Amino acid sequence: MTFVAIVPAGGAGTRLWPLSRRSHPKFLIDMTGVGRTLIQATSDRLEGLADDLIVVTGKDHAKAVAEQLDLSEDALVIEPSPRGTMPAIGLVAAIVEKRYGPDAVVGSFAADHLISDTGAFQQAVRTAIDSAKTGKVVTIGITPTSPDTGFGYIHVGEETTVKGAYAVAEFMEKPDLPRAVEYVESGTFLWNAGMFVSRVGVLLDSLAQFKPELAAGLRAIAAEWDGPGRAEALTGWDDLEDSVIDRAIAEPLAEIGGVTTVPVSMGWSDIGGYASLSEHLDNSAEQVSSGGSAQPVVLSGSDGAVVYSHDRPIVIHGIPEAVVVDTGDVLLVTTKEQSAGLGGVVASLGDDLNRLR
Amino acid sequence: MTFVAIVPAGGAGTRLWPLSRRSHPKFLIDMTGVGRTLIQATSDRLEGLADDLIVVTGKDHAKAVAEQLDLSEDALVIEPSPRGTMPAIGLVAAIVEKRYGPDAVVGSFAADHLISDTGAFQQAVRTAIDSAKTGKVVTIGITPTSPDTGFGYIHVGEETTVKGAYAVAEFMEKPDLPRAVEYVESGTFLWNAGMFVSRVGVLLDSLAQFKPELAAGLRAIAAEWDGPGRAEALTGWDDLEDSVIDRAIAEPLAEIGGVTTVPVSMGWSDIGGYASLSEHLDNSAEQVSSGGSAQPVVLSGSDGAVVYSHDRPIVIHGIPEAVVVDTGDVLLVTTKEQSAGLGGVVASLGDDLNRLR
Repeated sequence: MTFVAIVPAGGAGTRLWPLSRRSHPKFLIDMTGVGRTLIQATSDRLEGLADDLIVVTGKDHAKAVAEQLDLSEDALVIEPSPRGTMPAIGLVAAIVEKRYGPDAVVGSFAADHLISDTGAFQQAVRTAIDSAKTGKVVTIGITPTSPDTGFGYIHVGEETTVKGAYAVAEFMEKPDLPRAVEYVESGTFLWNAGMFVSRVGVLLDSLAQFKPELAAGLRAIAAEWDGPGRAEALTGWDDLEDSVIDRAIAEPLAEIGGVTTVPVSMGWSDIGGYASLSEHLDNSAEQVSSGGSAQPVVLSGSDGAVVYSHDRPIVIHGIPEAVVVDTGDVLLVTTKEQSAGLGGVVASLGDDLNRLR
Repeated sequence: MTFVAIVPAGGAGTRLWPLSRRSHPKFLIDMTGVGRTLIQATSDRLEGLADDLIVVTGKDHAKAVAEQLDLSEDALVIEPSPRGTMPAIGLVAAIVEKRYGPDAVVGSFAADHLISDTGAFQQAVRTAIDSAKTGKVVTIGITPTSPDTGFGYIHVGEETTVKGAYAVAEFMEKPDLPRAVEYVESGTFLWNAGMFVSRVGVLLDSLAQFKPELAAGLRAIAAEWDGPGRAEALTGWDDLEDSVIDRAIAEPLAEIGGVTTVPVSMGWSDIGGYASLSEHLDNSAEQVSSGGSAQPVVLSGSDGAVVYSHDRPIVIHGIPEAVVVDTGDVLLVTTKEQSAGLGGVVASLGDDLNRLR
């Protein structure tokens, strides 16, 4: 059995600005000061597990991705334009189907997530592969650690014949807080982290069932990918339907019993903002979370601060939960709570600061 | 009549750290971005008014002061050690007495105050000189703009024969807030800004009356100042009594009717902290007070912020009254309210950051 990891690397977002920005989204950054960028860590934790790894990204970041992972040309799929996760993952799946045949198993793993327990991750993927071999599309579900309203949830059903893999009863939209509390207390809901494992033939045939034109379009491009017709085939990209994999395959397939889930606790985070990031940084006695270079950070009356220092020491006095990010070309000062509104700030930057977006 | 300005330039304090620090106290800094340091502005506003100007400072800052003001050797008095304002001003007064005789008038003007209305200042000094010629020690009193509890107050008595000059009934210690409100509402109290004008003979004879040993010691050093015996005479400096001019002369002399005051409104500030400084910086529509270099400052939900930018743009989001000071070698993040406690923070800096004090 061949197992190919698909790593979609797209989207910058603004919630971790100015660390993450259009020109260097968070997957290209060593967010936690461990010496590896998020996409490098994603690749590292698939080592020994995946026979092959293919990154799908936009042309803006293709060069940086290839350099960081030392990728061969075959291992890099550049989308002409962003169309959502389904065309991106689906194109790679179709290429894998062409290269390895429909029984190859693919797993899709976002380039910008943090996972602290690699052993637990690898065990979950192995279980997911076993479940995928039974013809299911398998999602890796995260055992919730809080009633987070920022994630979709997976309603877990009965355990399947594969130990550790359960039927997915239903995918749930992002809940309000009372409902999220209910989900977490019930013990039968998982966070949907968007990680899917499946036989590539099953994945594309499922797509063909729900979105036949998209599946056909992707397979048509893939047919020419490794030959001289790639460029011409890619002109069909613009005709594809924008879609995300959860809506296109996972949700409708779950309704007819085709999806399973593997629950796991592995210190997972999508680093959705500074509050989330701070949980993954070192905490000193003074509860500073500090990344970046090793300039001293002095806190006074500022418990829970998140600090990225660049080339000068930083002193924070009397601002609890402060967020101070010095990237060298710009300095951001806010608080964890306020940082949720960074999108509006970034959008409001004038033309003179356009380079910082 | 000869009028000599005495400019005491000492003390760094911590309330404007890290702009102001041991190695470059605030008088050496262009605090408001006008292109002149505070001591240069002090000298500028005495232009055309004083026949001579003498700065008294410690050896740490003598070179910088001399360079900033292009001072001749005669115009710089270096105290061997800080002993308070009385020995500092008294020594210069004694030197002026020796050079120009006892009828020369001296005025003492701190090197690190801001005065926005130079015309009002000069008019007040002229009135003070007229009052000084009648044998009084004259203090320039500031018409209060708020019940500030950080200043001593002057209780004003009857107008004297010199129009615009009033008897000082009493000097009052820093009051509590209810008392300060009472003072300001009464309309008969002024802020004591520590500016004194007097015939030099009157000043030193008054000192001789209250502190005879100190007066004699200062006159003994001054006798040798402009000759070969200066160094030896200065060995007497260490025997002088530490004292401040308010306690040594102004308060006891006021009790016997020897002090007058000239009230003035002239946009005066001793820049006692970031809240005070911000009132003297340019306010944009978004109420940012920004000094330093011309890097963009972006405020969002941060009205009343004080920002010093150095070499990178600064974005502040959701922290009203923020104080963000980037001096290039260190970054301070606090609020106006919290900045009152900066002394403790500076004192707590470890040995590795000792250079920043």
